[in-house]
Amino acid sequence: MEALVLYEEISQLLTLEGVEKKQGRHPEQKDLGQLENASMVVNADSNLIVWVGKGDDLPSQYKDLPHRFSGKDQVWIPELVECHTHLIYGGTRHHDFALRCEGKSYQEIAAAGGGILTTMKATREASGEALVEHAAKDLARFQKFGIGTLEIKTGYGLTLESELRALEVIRALSEHAAMLLVPTFLPAHATPPEYKGRTDAYVDLICAEWLPEVAKTGLASFFDVFVENGYFSAQQARKLLHSALDQGFKLKVHSDQFSSLGGTQLGIELGASSIDHLDHISNEDIRALGESKTVAVLLPGASLFTGTPYPPARELIDAGARVALSTDYNPGTCPSRNLPLMTTIACTQMKMTVPEAIAAVTYNAAAALDLEDRVGSLTPGKEFRVCTLDADSYEALPYCFGEME
Amino acid sequence: MEALVLYEEISQLLTLEGVEKKQGRHPEQKDLGQLENASMVVNADSNLIVWVGKGDDLPSQYKDLPHRFSGKDQVWIPELVECHTHLIYGGTRHHDFALRCEGKSYQEIAAAGGGILTTMKATREASGEALVEHAAKDLARFQKFGIGTLEIKTGYGLTLESELRALEVIRALSEHAAMLLVPTFLPAHATPPEYKGRTDAYVDLICAEWLPEVAKTGLASFFDVFVENGYFSAQQARKLLHSALDQGFKLKVHSDQFSSLGGTQLGIELGASSIDHLDHISNEDIRALGESKTVAVLLPGASLFTGTPYPPARELIDAGARVALSTDYNPGTCPSRNLPLMTTIACTQMKMTVPEAIAAVTYNAAAALDLEDRVGSLTPGKEFRVCTLDADSYEALPYCFGEME
Repeated sequence: MEALVLYEEISQLLTLEGVEKKQGRHPEQKDLGQLENASMVVNADSNLIVWVGKGDDLPSQYKDLPHRFSGKDQVWIPELVECHTHLIYGGTRHHDFALRCEGKSYQEIAAAGGGILTTMKATREASGEALVEHAAKDLARFQKFGIGTLEIKTGYGLTLESELRALEVIRALSEHAAMLLVPTFLPAHATPPEYKGRTDAYVDLICAEWLPEVAKTGLASFFDVFVENGYFSAQQARKLLHSALDQGFKLKVHSDQFSSLGGTQLGIELGASSIDHLDHISNEDIRALGESKTVAVLLPGASLFTGTPYPPARELIDAGARVALSTDYNPGTCPSRNLPLMTTIACTQMKMTVPEAIAAVTYNAAAALDLEDRVGSLTPGKEFRVCTLDADSYEALPYCFGEME
Repeated sequence: MEALVLYEEISQLLTLEGVEKKQGRHPEQKDLGQLENASMVVNADSNLIVWVGKGDDLPSQYKDLPHRFSGKDQVWIPELVECHTHLIYGGTRHHDFALRCEGKSYQEIAAAGGGILTTMKATREASGEALVEHAAKDLARFQKFGIGTLEIKTGYGLTLESELRALEVIRALSEHAAMLLVPTFLPAHATPPEYKGRTDAYVDLICAEWLPEVAKTGLASFFDVFVENGYFSAQQARKLLHSALDQGFKLKVHSDQFSSLGGTQLGIELGASSIDHLDHISNEDIRALGESKTVAVLLPGASLFTGTPYPPARELIDAGARVALSTDYNPGTCPSRNLPLMTTIACTQMKMTVPEAIAAVTYNAAAALDLEDRVGSLTPGKEFRVCTLDADSYEALPYCFGEME
């Protein structure tokens, strides 16, 4: 019994028990498992939750635990899960942004030394140590916003060597971080200049050589591909995703960000854990996603930052889809690590309710990473990962916008 | 010479000299007064800037100052100015927000114990100490976002006693804060329940009794009025503003937030320092504002938070108006103290350029408070009030959105 710790008098606590039971579909206020004056028993050895409930209902065997802490005047919600970031990169792109605000075209920005190729070049040139240092700063920022689990994609190296280095950076960060990091291999983020005009050849290279090589290292859990005009077609994505499945990767797809090319149907068909962006998803695909287990990851910060339409969250949730929210943190289209702000944008611009937004950055974001059995809710058997709000209700999370309570 | 302090090797510094010369109209990149490897000489007794320029140009009489500090790897911009807040209030309104996200009407929210009258009741009932404590926490948050000068309105008391108490709270805060606080008397924020259906009588009371009483205390610099359907008409506002002018107050007007009722023309005619909101300003009023000295204070956070249209920043700037940005911090329509975030929204949703956004939260915001001779730029004679960014360019301010670099 010595490993057990009792937390008591927690002013408000959300277990998300109901969200868990519904597997994240149609989350309502009553599904948040709201408790006042709550207690929680945690096994300090395993860091797993043993018991949670109202203080009055605490089973007698836990009443005299010697290790106890008060959660008075605190609001506890599950530690936030950030399920889509492009966090390993070199350089910065604030000047691109300034030029864009002046109405400069992508061509003009590229000519002025901007655009994704600048980031690729800076990432290739950066040392592993520099990348680790940069990424560690980013992780500290994310932590300030209550995030404890975070996905990281490669995709700014686009050579086997630099993509592997990005994965090694993630592993190095994992060894020191209190955060749970989820690595995703995304070589099909763009066609590198070496393969300009020969995307099919690049796809073949990834399938034939890179995927087996990366699989061997065990450094990545997910494989991801950007299905979009000028990037990868649904046909190329199909080939990549099949190869990735063969090599034991779990799948993610960037789809419908600027146009609807079939990436969503493909992701559903192949059992992708998530399909991300969906700003231009078709009504047919909304229905299909609603009937699937695949999580819809929406990225409202990228819409706000680029001035493009927001994804149809309301329609997706009403269709039964499991909807998660993420920052899409990257230097080009969403240089923000403020995940709570994304819940505010979702509530005010995408007609999501507060319970839907809470589920979208906890349980459903965990589901997008196939981690809903470990994190994203505060029920027995789950990891003891808590986000503590300095507020009198969880409703403060989306309400205090642009800030962390 | 002992009172002089030298700051040297400042990696990047913006003086805003050009913005100052143009009095904040049409701010362009070249008006930001960008210096690399800059030096600044400050009189520590008066806290005024004595000299600023490139390190190489430092006059010889300052070269051997014994008190010197390095600004290496720092970006210095003028300390930000927040020119429109409703910071003195009791209670919280996050539950209103949650209900609104579920599609509840204002009537339903009021029936559930929400709405502005709840804030009024909580403010009236709060002790002066509680209001000071609450407001001091808010000020600390604002400071984290780089703000050093901040306007505060009354308007949640709506009795002479509680409005005066709010002004006394501001004075108490001023005595302890490093921030420069600007108090505004806003009794015409709404008609209090005691005068329901008798707004004219409330206006008469303010003119005949409250304004002379408050003027006597010297506790408020500005008088403000909310011109809007269901609040105060242009005719009522005219009466109020004339009385306020007679009592020696400087003027501000809330106008065109939901409808265009003539408040803007009135404010220009009476020489108001600023007219605030302007989401529904007419083309005629845009032209008039462009030709006036009155500052247009835009509040994009309120638009985002309530899901209403953004104000026409581009048209106003192109017409020559002096445009400032502010949070509108208040518990109902913008519970955010993140002024840098407002620059991001302005750039991405209102087509403002980065230099325009920088000018809008520094020089022009100072002009909205009649303080442009003291703060908002970093030129000789101005107060030494600096916002230091942990970035490699001022462009990071709107770029790193939802965060403070």
